[in-house]
Amino acid sequence: MEKKKVAEWLAQGSVVVPKLLLNHYKRLGLSEGELVLLLHMQSFFEEGVVFPTPAELAEKMTVPAAECMEMVRRLLQKGMVGIEEHTDERGVRGEKYTLEPLWEQLVHHLYAQAAKDGQIGQQEEEE
Amino acid sequence: MEKKKVAEWLAQGSVVVPKLLLNHYKRLGLSEGELVLLLHMQSFFEEGVVFPTPAELAEKMTVPAAECMEMVRRLLQKGMVGIEEHTDERGVRGEKYTLEPLWEQLVHHLYAQAAKDGQIGQQEEEE
Amino acid sequence: MEKKKVAEWLAQGSVVVPKLLLNHYKRLGLSEGELVLLLHMQSFFEEGVVFPTPAELAEKMTVPAAECMEMVRRLLQKGMVGIEEHTDERGVRGEKYTLEPLWEQLVHHLYAQAAKDGQIGQQEEEE
Amino acid sequence: MEKKKVAEWLAQGSVVVPKLLLNHYKRLGLSEGELVLLLHMQSFFEEGVVFPTPAELAEKMTVPAAECMEMVRRLLQKGMVGIEEHTDERGVRGEKYTLEPLWEQLVHHLYAQAAKDGQIGQQEEEE
Repeated sequence: MEKKKVAEWLAQGSVVVPKLLLNHYKRLGLSEGELVLLLHMQSFFEEGVVFPTPAELAEKMTVPAAECMEMVRRLLQKGMVGIEEHTDERGVRGEKYTLEPLWEQLVHHLYAQAAKDGQIGQQEEEE
Repeated sequence: MEKKKVAEWLAQGSVVVPKLLLNHYKRLGLSEGELVLLLHMQSFFEEGVVFPTPAELAEKMTVPAAECMEMVRRLLQKGMVGIEEHTDERGVRGEKYTLEPLWEQLVHHLYAQAAKDGQIGQQEEEE
Repeated sequence: MEKKKVAEWLAQGSVVVPKLLLNHYKRLGLSEGELVLLLHMQSFFEEGVVFPTPAELAEKMTVPAAECMEMVRRLLQKGMVGIEEHTDERGVRGEKYTLEPLWEQLVHHLYAQAAKDGQIGQQEEEE
Repeated sequence: MEKKKVAEWLAQGSVVVPKLLLNHYKRLGLSEGELVLLLHMQSFFEEGVVFPTPAELAEKMTVPAAECMEMVRRLLQKGMVGIEEHTDERGVRGEKYTLEPLWEQLVHHLYAQAAKDGQIGQQEEEE
């Protein structure tokens, strides 16, 4: 019976943080708390929860729901998180978060840095 | 435009292979082909495809659909993969694969090995 | 030339955060900042830096070196991080951090929770 | 004592397979066996073993050392793996494997595909 429990723990899976993000979130203007909130979002997405509420986020974090809401608002404002329309399998329309803007900002930052270091042409950077 | 493409690539995510599995699949009686098939299953699950067909698996693998079907059959027989009932959000009943048996066999193997090495008591191993 | 840069980005690898840790760090008494510091440590270890300095940590984080030092001190005190002797390949003796205590506290917490929920016996929990 | 063992298992870490690689290795001309060999290499690198021998690889795989050697030879020939000079911390010179060529081939393939689909300009593809 205990082995079953241990198997369950091993089966829970992981969230992957690309080192590119870990090494550059600071330059993108993100705090550690915001980075972790983004990891929780990713974890929720993988479990099929596409629009986690501030209360759901707060349950996992050390900050109260009101502050989670404020953090999400700031991430939307900074253009790190987006909201898209979403129709679930029953045809019910709703919203979902997307982290695509985060990846775009990260790539933008990497190109700008590589152009500054002379590793790619200015023109490529500006495309 | 190109940056958008690069951001998409970075955003595609990853499948995580615990080193415990990578170091022990051989002892569990799995081949490299079967290990990769299990990774494809996990990847499908994360995209919401809970019961990938042999054709869907074969599209990503170097083996034809008939052999993928045979591989899945063998994994079911060896007790590495299970099939569970599944009701989707529209209430349609179907089946889904589960990798829980794989994790249970892995834990079973780890306990047996630790007991043999005298690291845990025989009794704990037999629980 | 640009493709080479993109390949480098893809090659940088990732840090893996087990969902067990992501879902329970709060109950272990860790803040979001401390969780991210632990991820940076793990990232340094993989690059062969076994005893990152507060300055090295601070370079990646939004907190100054003095506060990083304070965070590490607190993590050592809470028994989440340990320090071990380390002899490098040239025979020079030094110290290295280990995250083993973190995993032990996590497992301890999981057992305690499972015992409370009646999923494993009290005796197993106390072992 | 048993908890200590479980903590060790959880602490063993993971190897990360980007979905880009999982979805495209077939098009790069890699077999499932070769993909798994590359994962073992990555796992060895993270443990500080920069030039694993065929015997070390074979110990983890279902194929004998002679075939592992043959697989590595083929990967070198196909330009998926490279060999670089390496000086360890004691100043001893030796060789190490690098997976950079794999990532470059993957990026090359992704650009070619995107150009074919009209998502990026031909010129960008040819850079």
